[in-house]
Amino acid sequence: MGRTSNAKERILDSAQQLIHARSYSDVGVQEICDYANVKKGSFYYYFPSKQELTLAVIDHIWDQFQVTLQQTLNSHLSPLERIRHLPLMAYQINSLNINEEGKITGCPFGNLATEMSTQDEKIRLHLDNIFTKIVSQIEQTLKEGVQCEEIHPIDTHSTAQAIFAYLEGIILLAKTHNQPEMIKALGGHITQLISPIH
Amino acid sequence: MGRTSNAKERILDSAQQLIHARSYSDVGVQEICDYANVKKGSFYYYFPSKQELTLAVIDHIWDQFQVTLQQTLNSHLSPLERIRHLPLMAYQINSLNINEEGKITGCPFGNLATEMSTQDEKIRLHLDNIFTKIVSQIEQTLKEGVQCEEIHPIDTHSTAQAIFAYLEGIILLAKTHNQPEMIKALGGHITQLISPIH
Repeated sequence: MGRTSNAKERILDSAQQLIHARSYSDVGVQEICDYANVKKGSFYYYFPSKQELTLAVIDHIWDQFQVTLQQTLNSHLSPLERIRHLPLMAYQINSLNINEEGKITGCPFGNLATEMSTQDEKIRLHLDNIFTKIVSQIEQTLKEGVQCEEIHPIDTHSTAQAIFAYLEGIILLAKTHNQPEMIKALGGHITQLISPIH
Repeated sequence: MGRTSNAKERILDSAQQLIHARSYSDVGVQEICDYANVKKGSFYYYFPSKQELTLAVIDHIWDQFQVTLQQTLNSHLSPLERIRHLPLMAYQINSLNINEEGKITGCPFGNLATEMSTQDEKIRLHLDNIFTKIVSQIEQTLKEGVQCEEIHPIDTHSTAQAIFAYLEGIILLAKTHNQPEMIKALGGHITQLISPIH
């Protein structure tokens, strides 16, 4: 039981690493099995399909990421300062996520959403749900800021979506330029999205 | 000669449609040939590899897109109004780019940059170059705005990058939610990126 449960974990970790470093379509089940050192039969015992595996990988990444996100959004800093720290968090994560060729791999959710939204409805909906959760946590911080009058009254939902979109956008630019520092450099603009619309 | 030149155009158009509707890795050379109704020999006569084809596809899309971008950024409107029209432009393009399953396909440059930046250095650099051109055109409009004092003095380069990143981010969210209207709804935040950083 210990061994099989370990195999499942190895498959998840391997799929996460390989897909994040390249793409969903570029990584096959056989390669994941080889990387995880498990037999194909064992793979299909846990995951009936590559789609099911990918949904589990998304949850697996989310379990790890939400800890980091909550550390940033529930810190002792003021709400505005916490928002200001989001690009720094993204920068730190992206500085670590470098593949074998020295390339930054970007946001695993953004990568899969971009690649799979037109191709797999279940994966699209799963990622859309993750995006909703992230936006909701950013919105909660904005609401706190409005409540303590650090932030003037704003449409917190729309602003939270804008902030999340901006983060995804700067990560994409940094990935294309292969320079994680770009996330930090452009991150300073994030609080502008909280200023009045003109 | 007319026929062969037509075959090249058909290959480019087919590759553009298929890759944009799905992804680079998911579309093979044989499928592109079938869709374009050309023989494989003819394909390799024009494009020595799928990589070379993709670089040509990027240029092909750029040739079309830059006309639309210039119409938006060189219109009779004031510089700030032109920036405000960028999300509307993105909304209009994305409302038209719907694949066979009724899914919006997003930004073809953003899609390829996300999928290929870790996998193909030539494609990454080509897209990074396209991004630089887009940012440069946005920056030019910001400079005009500063010059005519519609926009207060800002770091026009960093702001242009932020505006472009934001556009890519809202297109990604709209693609994941499969709702082009999201680009219009979140587009209103774009001019906030021109306000003073606080």
